[in-house]
Amino acid sequence: MRELPVYDIDLETIALRLEGLEETIIYHLIERAQYRVNGIVYEPGKNGFTGFEKESLLDIRLLYHERMDAEFGRFVVPEERPFNPGLPPPRRAVNLPAYPLYLDDYDVINLTARIKTAYTAFLPFLCRSGDDGQYGSTIEHDVFALQAIARRIHYGALFVAESKYREKPELYQDLVSRRARNDIMDALTRREVEERIIHRVKEKVKVAQETANRRVRVLIDPDTVVRFYRETIIPFTKEGEVRYLEHRKTG
Amino acid sequence: MRELPVYDIDLETIALRLEGLEETIIYHLIERAQYRVNGIVYEPGKNGFTGFEKESLLDIRLLYHERMDAEFGRFVVPEERPFNPGLPPPRRAVNLPAYPLYLDDYDVINLTARIKTAYTAFLPFLCRSGDDGQYGSTIEHDVFALQAIARRIHYGALFVAESKYREKPELYQDLVSRRARNDIMDALTRREVEERIIHRVKEKVKVAQETANRRVRVLIDPDTVVRFYRETIIPFTKEGEVRYLEHRKTG
Repeated sequence: MRELPVYDIDLETIALRLEGLEETIIYHLIERAQYRVNGIVYEPGKNGFTGFEKESLLDIRLLYHERMDAEFGRFVVPEERPFNPGLPPPRRAVNLPAYPLYLDDYDVINLTARIKTAYTAFLPFLCRSGDDGQYGSTIEHDVFALQAIARRIHYGALFVAESKYREKPELYQDLVSRRARNDIMDALTRREVEERIIHRVKEKVKVAQETANRRVRVLIDPDTVVRFYRETIIPFTKEGEVRYLEHRKTG
Repeated sequence: MRELPVYDIDLETIALRLEGLEETIIYHLIERAQYRVNGIVYEPGKNGFTGFEKESLLDIRLLYHERMDAEFGRFVVPEERPFNPGLPPPRRAVNLPAYPLYLDDYDVINLTARIKTAYTAFLPFLCRSGDDGQYGSTIEHDVFALQAIARRIHYGALFVAESKYREKPELYQDLVSRRARNDIMDALTRREVEERIIHRVKEKVKVAQETANRRVRVLIDPDTVVRFYRETIIPFTKEGEVRYLEHRKTG
């Protein structure tokens, strides 16, 4: 009895899946915030790791983690886009459903470089300042958070864009042919949905921390996560949607 | 400005740290429960992974993950005991505080084999039955959950035992010399503390899921986690405490 995930292109189903990814992002941000900013792990060349020179310690951890994930087949899934190029091929067969997507190369919507930059810039707002020496735990949680954020952005970029395209194929074909990026962005934008997401995320961050003991758990400000959704997650998802539409095969 | 974690041997401080690890365990169990049992990933030899024969797919993921973690220095930390032997040495220097522990080999309290068996037996109660084909995500979350559970058990085993020893060194020295395992267990046990932990865990599981949308998130029964705490986490921690006391250096 096998039950592969359903890849319905219905916008409500997609929105539900995006909603389900919120808990994962929130959990990982809360876990990351238990450690201080620990800025040194993001500095190129200051990794203290044998065999690497220019990379930051986070870069090395991401590379190790993605090499492992690649061998387990993670990146054959459309919404799992890697932060590193040149990863090894899978060492196992992965069962995939028939995706209702029309791209030759999923990596045209790969926004990982920008996600990493935005996330690193966000950390001083999420975490307490300073250095607690807990570099191993810090980068471990960074990788989890980055993967959860990237999955949400890339899933939205692919599936929301395809769904919206099907509602108005002529409109999007026309806008893409005229390279009218701003108009594509406007056509994709639904402010009331964005506000609903933001309101919901704020509630989830609040409730997720209600039972935590402040003497041992660091609490995060729900508005900090809201800002990251507003300034990074939502606009990056839309940027990915535009890229999807620009590269979608129409034939 | 570096701030290494304080390794106070005060029982209240240790209890607070154990409490802080509960959120991590609960988060990972909830995330794991989003996937079905997927029993095949625990079956030896059914891994479908090039280059491995007898192992289960989970075993292979654990090995990959721990090899990576070992190079980043995870297992130099006393409470981070690996599931696999023969891991590579660290490729970076790890800053460690002076631990107030008196063991020649931290692995005398390593309960990972039993933790993996108990966790695997617990999964049919935590997850919906059946197979959803999501093996990669399943074993990824298994590793996170196993590491969080093992950390809690081993941290408790080391630090709680040392703290209790200091309260009554003669008592424990006498019981250990007489190999009175049951009496050691009785001396270590504080039922009211165990009941407080269980009550708190139940509340945390409930509240953690309050804002989840049931249409897209699978909810877990707080009593299931409570049972795992009662039947596995708490008794294994105490077993580890007994081992600590049996191997503690007195000289």
